[in-house]
Amino acid sequence: MNDVNAILLLSCADSKGLVAKISDFIFRRNGNIVHADQHTSKTDKLFFMRVEWELKGFALGREEISAAFAPLAKQFKMKWDLHFTDYTPRMAIFVSKHMHCLHDLILRRHMDELAAGVEAVISNHPDAGDLVEQFGIKFFHFPVTEKNKKQQEARELKLLREMNIDLVVLARYMQILSGKFLEYYSNRIINIHHSFLPAFAGGNPYKQAYDRGVKIIGATGHYVTEQLDEGPIIAQDVIKISHRDTVADIQTKSKDLERVVLARALRLHLENKILVYGSKTIVFE
Amino acid sequence: MNDVNAILLLSCADSKGLVAKISDFIFRRNGNIVHADQHTSKTDKLFFMRVEWELKGFALGREEISAAFAPLAKQFKMKWDLHFTDYTPRMAIFVSKHMHCLHDLILRRHMDELAAGVEAVISNHPDAGDLVEQFGIKFFHFPVTEKNKKQQEARELKLLREMNIDLVVLARYMQILSGKFLEYYSNRIINIHHSFLPAFAGGNPYKQAYDRGVKIIGATGHYVTEQLDEGPIIAQDVIKISHRDTVADIQTKSKDLERVVLARALRLHLENKILVYGSKTIVFE
Amino acid sequence: MNDVNAILLLSCADSKGLVAKISDFIFRRNGNIVHADQHTSKTDKLFFMRVEWELKGFALGREEISAAFAPLAKQFKMKWDLHFTDYTPRMAIFVSKHMHCLHDLILRRHMDELAAGVEAVISNHPDAGDLVEQFGIKFFHFPVTEKNKKQQEARELKLLREMNIDLVVLARYMQILSGKFLEYYSNRIINIHHSFLPAFAGGNPYKQAYDRGVKIIGATGHYVTEQLDEGPIIAQDVIKISHRDTVADIQTKSKDLERVVLARALRLHLENKILVYGSKTIVFE
Amino acid sequence: MNDVNAILLLSCADSKGLVAKISDFIFRRNGNIVHADQHTSKTDKLFFMRVEWELKGFALGREEISAAFAPLAKQFKMKWDLHFTDYTPRMAIFVSKHMHCLHDLILRRHMDELAAGVEAVISNHPDAGDLVEQFGIKFFHFPVTEKNKKQQEARELKLLREMNIDLVVLARYMQILSGKFLEYYSNRIINIHHSFLPAFAGGNPYKQAYDRGVKIIGATGHYVTEQLDEGPIIAQDVIKISHRDTVADIQTKSKDLERVVLARALRLHLENKILVYGSKTIVFE
Repeated sequence: MNDVNAILLLSCADSKGLVAKISDFIFRRNGNIVHADQHTSKTDKLFFMRVEWELKGFALGREEISAAFAPLAKQFKMKWDLHFTDYTPRMAIFVSKHMHCLHDLILRRHMDELAAGVEAVISNHPDAGDLVEQFGIKFFHFPVTEKNKKQQEARELKLLREMNIDLVVLARYMQILSGKFLEYYSNRIINIHHSFLPAFAGGNPYKQAYDRGVKIIGATGHYVTEQLDEGPIIAQDVIKISHRDTVADIQTKSKDLERVVLARALRLHLENKILVYGSKTIVFE
Repeated sequence: MNDVNAILLLSCADSKGLVAKISDFIFRRNGNIVHADQHTSKTDKLFFMRVEWELKGFALGREEISAAFAPLAKQFKMKWDLHFTDYTPRMAIFVSKHMHCLHDLILRRHMDELAAGVEAVISNHPDAGDLVEQFGIKFFHFPVTEKNKKQQEARELKLLREMNIDLVVLARYMQILSGKFLEYYSNRIINIHHSFLPAFAGGNPYKQAYDRGVKIIGATGHYVTEQLDEGPIIAQDVIKISHRDTVADIQTKSKDLERVVLARALRLHLENKILVYGSKTIVFE
Repeated sequence: MNDVNAILLLSCADSKGLVAKISDFIFRRNGNIVHADQHTSKTDKLFFMRVEWELKGFALGREEISAAFAPLAKQFKMKWDLHFTDYTPRMAIFVSKHMHCLHDLILRRHMDELAAGVEAVISNHPDAGDLVEQFGIKFFHFPVTEKNKKQQEARELKLLREMNIDLVVLARYMQILSGKFLEYYSNRIINIHHSFLPAFAGGNPYKQAYDRGVKIIGATGHYVTEQLDEGPIIAQDVIKISHRDTVADIQTKSKDLERVVLARALRLHLENKILVYGSKTIVFE
Repeated sequence: MNDVNAILLLSCADSKGLVAKISDFIFRRNGNIVHADQHTSKTDKLFFMRVEWELKGFALGREEISAAFAPLAKQFKMKWDLHFTDYTPRMAIFVSKHMHCLHDLILRRHMDELAAGVEAVISNHPDAGDLVEQFGIKFFHFPVTEKNKKQQEARELKLLREMNIDLVVLARYMQILSGKFLEYYSNRIINIHHSFLPAFAGGNPYKQAYDRGVKIIGATGHYVTEQLDEGPIIAQDVIKISHRDTVADIQTKSKDLERVVLARALRLHLENKILVYGSKTIVFE
């Protein structure tokens, strides 16, 4: 249990003494806090906190912490999650035709840059199979038609559950997921949208950006909700373009951006630094 | 005429020999080209050029150039403008309640950073008057109501024409200008919109950005057309925000951005570096 | 005392229970924490904290807080400062020939954007006098020669002390301040350097950037120490340039950057968000 | 020869009529110019041009162009190069222990994003071999010691020449190349330096950035010259960091930047958009 930390993510109505009581809970059990971030939304009178402490020397075993914390959580009607830094989340990547984000994630994993296991790659096209399997990752091809869409998604969900997948990454996956799927993986599906949302939501944002004549394009990493392209935003970045850039040039520039923004959003999720709040996120960077 | 340059801005259907013929026109008259920028839109088969050359040693006087160039322009059905670098455009600034862009422009003029004369400041509110007049600039107060809107605008346009105003800058002016006004100053009215267009067009973009939970905000300098917030974009820039930023914080950050983006758009216009093309711009930076 | 907050900035050797004890100190006296930021440097085993709470309802009067907190501070050998959000620091601005940062600060004050009083502008040149006095600010001209340098600085320091100046801003001031002056205003003098430090320290960074052919230039806001251009960095930003930019173009672009970066550094200081630590800063943004 | 363009890159002392004569050379032979970029350095009185035209319909075969252009080039003492867009340069990548840039380039090639053939990967360590060969690329391991350094470099240079390598990319290669090697591949070796040059030249720039407490880090793509880290800069970019970032965090953030900046520098080179001029570059973006 050396070097393992516990991370508590919580939110509740704002109230006096929350920081004191939560840090006291840890201190009394001999825990050493290494990070504490707190945010109060004045307009909504809500309190958000992320606190990380060392398990080494802590009076409670990791399996005892939840029960010990529950009374305090109940008193303040907290929503809360407990994570441990030695757990490696199990991730599945969905992809369609555009491979750049998939490739980037596979290489990050290969370089031990990703704090997650890439357990499966799922696609409605067979194209990615060879490369994926070359890196020792399981590849599943689920061709999707208008007709079999519902059944295929059910099979995918079944597979993910059997494989104990914690997190789904849509790395330029062009199929829309149903409410049922989204509910099961609520706040655990990350999508990369190839525009600076809310600008150019929907189809073909490269073309939309070209037609509008913007001087900057962007990419957005966000959690997926039923309202397409309206999920809570985790990370965004932009890059300059000019009149010289064709739609193809915009695509080339954007692809670099998408890779980096998706990786950044994913890293923040894997480090348990994100709290979702309505259609927004608190990101304790 | 020492150190004065001529600038030709032109566009036409693409055709072989355009660069050769235009540069030859200048060279044969002993002109020294100091800048030549050219762009061909392959999709639209259009040709755009900006060429700047020294009048010193040029065989034609400045008043003779247009007549000499006209036949070539006619042959290729060019749209074209001729400018001289020693002309100081006469500018009017429109403002409502938010003064930061106006203040910025006044100070830039005071520091000789603006290649334009600030001849008049026009507002539907009296607030800016004192500061404006303190810097020796004429201030005109045109209160606008639902009822007198049309007449006031007519009076403003008359004033601008009498004052020989070349360029109108809307430095956070909250009234909508009519088609008649816009037509007279076509591609000569620059507005600063306090969002990264096309995101958060319309009213209160700070609040819209806050509500959507974006991680980046922007500002857009553009020419004004009848379709509000849809005019050709000249310059855009962005700045990062986080969940810690209230609407007021967003406003504070945005104001710095708006000043800089408006000044950049204005500088590009004053240096005759912009060609408008449909709802887009070619900016020869 | 409505709406007034207290802010505690502190640092000490890292130790278990610091967050708990500090937040408990506030909670037991019925204080409502509105912001709490904490940072632990693992390499140096140091703890940093900024905590802000409402005085409204707090059991102690503002003049009693220091005495009450002192025992805890002593126990952990803390360096600490206590601030109140209703105090408006008294600021003096030093300037030489380049006025853009001075102008920007004066206008921000005029627009009520600066949470500080601009009490005096001091210059080794007379140029800024008229504009400064036009805005109702006191102007002091201290011409500096090789010979009188020491005496003039002594007179300046005397003036600042008599005027109870809290904070000195070097808005492109080209004279070097002595160790005595710097010691008196330790961590209370902010300078804007017109390069991306540590690149292009020293004289004429615009020319240095041009000669080196960099593709990006920057500006740096930092506290002033005896080692010129090596003080703790508060804020930095950059802008792209190209081979088309002359030294004069670089200057024009940089000036916009300098204004914004200096204003940002100043805002962070005035919001008491900075802890200095060796030659570095902790900025709780 | 459909859709193939010729690209002329040239520089010479500035002189009247250069644009006219060069564009006339192309026009008289029935060439259609698709891009023409020109730059005049006023301080050095130098002229730079990049002109691209369609071979389709051009009166000269590609092998005849050089001879036809030579008299004009001689008259103005031009330095010049002629390229054709259907030639795919043969590239070798050098790497040591850090693989992220190598991986990125391999994947870009795999996705047909690179307009170059990756013919060989050369390393002083064996680590990269498996992955490189998995993608069907030749891998050469040249272990380097103090003693054999000179001979190994000679063998490498021999290999590159035998393989007709046009371009060498140092993708985090930690050995210094000799003047002989550099001379042979003058302006054809691109290095990625993991700092914002000239800041943090030399070893361990991540640690240097951490120790200095900068708020922004960068990466620089540049041509390699004998003066280490002083070669002509092609592309730079930056990313924000904070006091929370450890040296390891800085490395993680920087690696994303290095990949993108190296790829951008390489793309500009492969599109023949760069002219080197002393220790600087003209980049016709």
